[in-house]
Amino acid sequence: MEQRTASRFGAGDERGAANLIDAAATLRGIAAAGNGRVVPLAMPILNNDRGAGVEMRAAPQHFMTRHGGDYAAGLPERAGYGFSDDVIMLPTHGATHIDALAHVWRDGTMYNGFRATDVTSRGAARCGIDKLGAVATRALFVDFGDDPDFAPDRAIHSADLEARIAAGGIAPEPGDALLIRTGWLRAWRAGAAGKNATAGLHHDCADWIVRSGIALVAADNIAVEVMPSRDPDCAMPLHIAVTRDNGVYLAELLDLEALASLAPRAVMLVIAPLAIKGGVGSPVTPVAIC
Amino acid sequence: MEQRTASRFGAGDERGAANLIDAAATLRGIAAAGNGRVVPLAMPILNNDRGAGVEMRAAPQHFMTRHGGDYAAGLPERAGYGFSDDVIMLPTHGATHIDALAHVWRDGTMYNGFRATDVTSRGAARCGIDKLGAVATRALFVDFGDDPDFAPDRAIHSADLEARIAAGGIAPEPGDALLIRTGWLRAWRAGAAGKNATAGLHHDCADWIVRSGIALVAADNIAVEVMPSRDPDCAMPLHIAVTRDNGVYLAELLDLEALASLAPRAVMLVIAPLAIKGGVGSPVTPVAIC
Amino acid sequence: MEQRTASRFGAGDERGAANLIDAAATLRGIAAAGNGRVVPLAMPILNNDRGAGVEMRAAPQHFMTRHGGDYAAGLPERAGYGFSDDVIMLPTHGATHIDALAHVWRDGTMYNGFRATDVTSRGAARCGIDKLGAVATRALFVDFGDDPDFAPDRAIHSADLEARIAAGGIAPEPGDALLIRTGWLRAWRAGAAGKNATAGLHHDCADWIVRSGIALVAADNIAVEVMPSRDPDCAMPLHIAVTRDNGVYLAELLDLEALASLAPRAVMLVIAPLAIKGGVGSPVTPVAIC
Amino acid sequence: MEQRTASRFGAGDERGAANLIDAAATLRGIAAAGNGRVVPLAMPILNNDRGAGVEMRAAPQHFMTRHGGDYAAGLPERAGYGFSDDVIMLPTHGATHIDALAHVWRDGTMYNGFRATDVTSRGAARCGIDKLGAVATRALFVDFGDDPDFAPDRAIHSADLEARIAAGGIAPEPGDALLIRTGWLRAWRAGAAGKNATAGLHHDCADWIVRSGIALVAADNIAVEVMPSRDPDCAMPLHIAVTRDNGVYLAELLDLEALASLAPRAVMLVIAPLAIKGGVGSPVTPVAIC
Repeated sequence: MEQRTASRFGAGDERGAANLIDAAATLRGIAAAGNGRVVPLAMPILNNDRGAGVEMRAAPQHFMTRHGGDYAAGLPERAGYGFSDDVIMLPTHGATHIDALAHVWRDGTMYNGFRATDVTSRGAARCGIDKLGAVATRALFVDFGDDPDFAPDRAIHSADLEARIAAGGIAPEPGDALLIRTGWLRAWRAGAAGKNATAGLHHDCADWIVRSGIALVAADNIAVEVMPSRDPDCAMPLHIAVTRDNGVYLAELLDLEALASLAPRAVMLVIAPLAIKGGVGSPVTPVAIC
Repeated sequence: MEQRTASRFGAGDERGAANLIDAAATLRGIAAAGNGRVVPLAMPILNNDRGAGVEMRAAPQHFMTRHGGDYAAGLPERAGYGFSDDVIMLPTHGATHIDALAHVWRDGTMYNGFRATDVTSRGAARCGIDKLGAVATRALFVDFGDDPDFAPDRAIHSADLEARIAAGGIAPEPGDALLIRTGWLRAWRAGAAGKNATAGLHHDCADWIVRSGIALVAADNIAVEVMPSRDPDCAMPLHIAVTRDNGVYLAELLDLEALASLAPRAVMLVIAPLAIKGGVGSPVTPVAIC
Repeated sequence: MEQRTASRFGAGDERGAANLIDAAATLRGIAAAGNGRVVPLAMPILNNDRGAGVEMRAAPQHFMTRHGGDYAAGLPERAGYGFSDDVIMLPTHGATHIDALAHVWRDGTMYNGFRATDVTSRGAARCGIDKLGAVATRALFVDFGDDPDFAPDRAIHSADLEARIAAGGIAPEPGDALLIRTGWLRAWRAGAAGKNATAGLHHDCADWIVRSGIALVAADNIAVEVMPSRDPDCAMPLHIAVTRDNGVYLAELLDLEALASLAPRAVMLVIAPLAIKGGVGSPVTPVAIC
Repeated sequence: MEQRTASRFGAGDERGAANLIDAAATLRGIAAAGNGRVVPLAMPILNNDRGAGVEMRAAPQHFMTRHGGDYAAGLPERAGYGFSDDVIMLPTHGATHIDALAHVWRDGTMYNGFRATDVTSRGAARCGIDKLGAVATRALFVDFGDDPDFAPDRAIHSADLEARIAAGGIAPEPGDALLIRTGWLRAWRAGAAGKNATAGLHHDCADWIVRSGIALVAADNIAVEVMPSRDPDCAMPLHIAVTRDNGVYLAELLDLEALASLAPRAVMLVIAPLAIKGGVGSPVTPVAIC
């Protein structure tokens, strides 16, 4: 897998396929939002619960630093005002989140030829999540959750993906996003799926994704792509092929159940990562409007 | 200040003025987004830096738990795949954020008659930020940053606010938001303002805000309202009058500088808090589209 | 269970049975240290591993904030000097630890009549771990690990405890500590014991402990006392009877395996909690010298 | 500065000068503890306060996860038992602490020829603080706090150190520790000293320290050694010369004020770091017994 010396977005670019999301893409998103229904797509962040996040990461910690109990215990309201405060600590990839381009690499090289060594204890000097800004574009909603071929560990091949998108009747345009419901999350919640074998995209989808100008792929599973990898030479071949080689963003652990009940073909999708300087991902609440 | 036994949104309601953001409001927002420009409104989250956040809160901590340095130090890429990971810890009110309705109370009572004691070390059992979902509505942009009366500690009275909105030519409708640029942030960055005396809304704005059906007020300062309080009987009178008494949301520490340069009269505003179960606020990257 | 209006150590006292550890007690400890062998008694603190700590608490998080990988990635040593840095986050009761007197209460009252409400989000205003200072005294080592009656969920009754101490031939004196090896930890590590049913002291030991002037009881289990409680009216009756009612300290999750192989009858025991202002416990590495 | 291919304690050794603390050293410590006075030497750990710790590190965070306020707010005691719980997060070098041998290096090499790259995001694979165990030995107390030459930024030269130890009348023996009161902490607390120019040992003390078989040097300042460095070629020359080149431990930010009032010539010193696997330092409460 060759690393281009410069990406299609130019030497030095750190935003990758977000560059494809121009005003026209945003306006396509707006056009898909015509009923004004707002659907948040995040899973709940629960104190000290790993939820669907992978085991190697820490559980979120939600600390209350002031609350009603303090006042009940005698703290006076100061000048007619009581308040609560809290602190949240969580792995940026442990809840519903978006990956920074700095999240993955191969052979020491990440997107656009930047070096893995640009990411240190000080954070990502290159391609951090703070470089993304915010995404507002059209997303095609692709639902494999009720597919006859559904399995909680299914590899969704490019042919499957293309066929279903064709059936939806909306041809993707550059800057569009994909919202993929694999059905894994629903199965996992029902106790019918684990975290090690998860339905997702086969890496043979990468070419079509890139060729179609998709800027972001989001899914209701751990890694967008099927796990374990079907590529013996690479543990995360889709990540490498789309994010590292082509600057396409991935967002994971979305809850698409409510959206599925609306069965939209396309939505306006807004994903606004926290502006963590040098972060390699961010927890988010993606929003679909349709 | 009387606490209603039930809010205008019904006994038991925990979403407050977010209920005003119906499909019509979202569609008004969409109508304001006509040029498709996407402007993120968050301040950067910097490791171990308090930034504009108040001193009593902790500085954000950004921990890298795996990065390129580990591979440089000898960690092999596993099956053609290297990655970085990180953890973020921050006070939910210490960066650009939105307050939950559970954030404030008076006389032991918060929005809709819920008790302050509903907020404990386990988080907010009532009116937590997870009850909000996501906001997507029209926001009127009101810029006092270049006002002839600008001062970094100015109290913006209702008359000022109403006059400027009238001058903008767009009458607010129920479910709209306000984006208020006080100019404090710019002054603070320039070293021309402190954190204890900050420009903001005088509490005499509360009636107009509520009467107009405003669902959310966001500003480029610490507390939306002017600090210190001009009300000798209440340290945060606007918070009490709008959030506690009427369920109106406040969002703070927004960076409105880039938006100001576009000088829109209205924008589509999307604010999607992290789904922190029982959280009393959430860091966010608000997004303006215009 | 009556709460004394003032403890045996005087109204206002916040150190409890630590007051019994006078110079004579410390010198008894010193006399037991005659062979100069130093045995640390802590379990390892492992990143993101709950170990033997109870499930409701968070796993320790060990964050490296600078390390050799950063230099390998290109960070230059500044003036002939490279260094690493780290941050530790852990529940104070989640690893080998000592309880503060502020850790437990009944009927809203903790040690010496102080109110549970003295412990708030600001920490323990009374009886925090910072009030203890450091313990250096004689500890009798009582090993039930190889007892013929051993069971990983055994309730050790006062008769058992007294008999074994009598067999050891050293009569406790005021200010002494007890190091109790129940054998639970060894069984737990071997997969032969769980966290819900743990060997430990029956609450009928409380009277003898208090009467003997024991200042601190430490054990190789989760709560010193047997779990679940044998008292239908109290979930932690030994905690209440010794700590709350009498100011006796408890230390938990000690690793006494190495010490057991030396089979001392008594040791010098040093426990020096972190000086966490208002902390309700502290991780420690207890040290036995014998 | 040559790096030995193997330390004086053998190839592969990870404990350094702690090897010098044999039973004889511990017994010397015990002999110095003859009056049984126990003096903790830690500075308080205060929530969200950097105290004397250096600015680049985070302030400790003390989170209460359950407390009396929760019960005041309505949480029932379960079966006659209420409790509080807390979490502590702090940089291991931000409060009174001991450095691991893995804390410093030069030219990519740390103690005993181990590589800086042995310290990664996973912690120190070599020479972590967990390798130390616990220190219990004799410490000579050397008080420059009332020296006629005292200055809050004084460089204490080897001649000064040797003279004062000679005046104390106790010749160091291998495995002994030094407790150095520079007076900086007292001056800093009085507002008469900063954090950038701190009294401490000149690096010309290194040879004497190593030659004397000192296992650990602890002081009431930020880095044991004088800051800024008097060596233009090295920012922390004493760290390099004693810790990196010779495995001698350094402990910093001790509060020696109470001990100074007792004016002992020697004490028993116990330092028991938390057993943080791979930690590069540990907060501690050192204990002097004299």
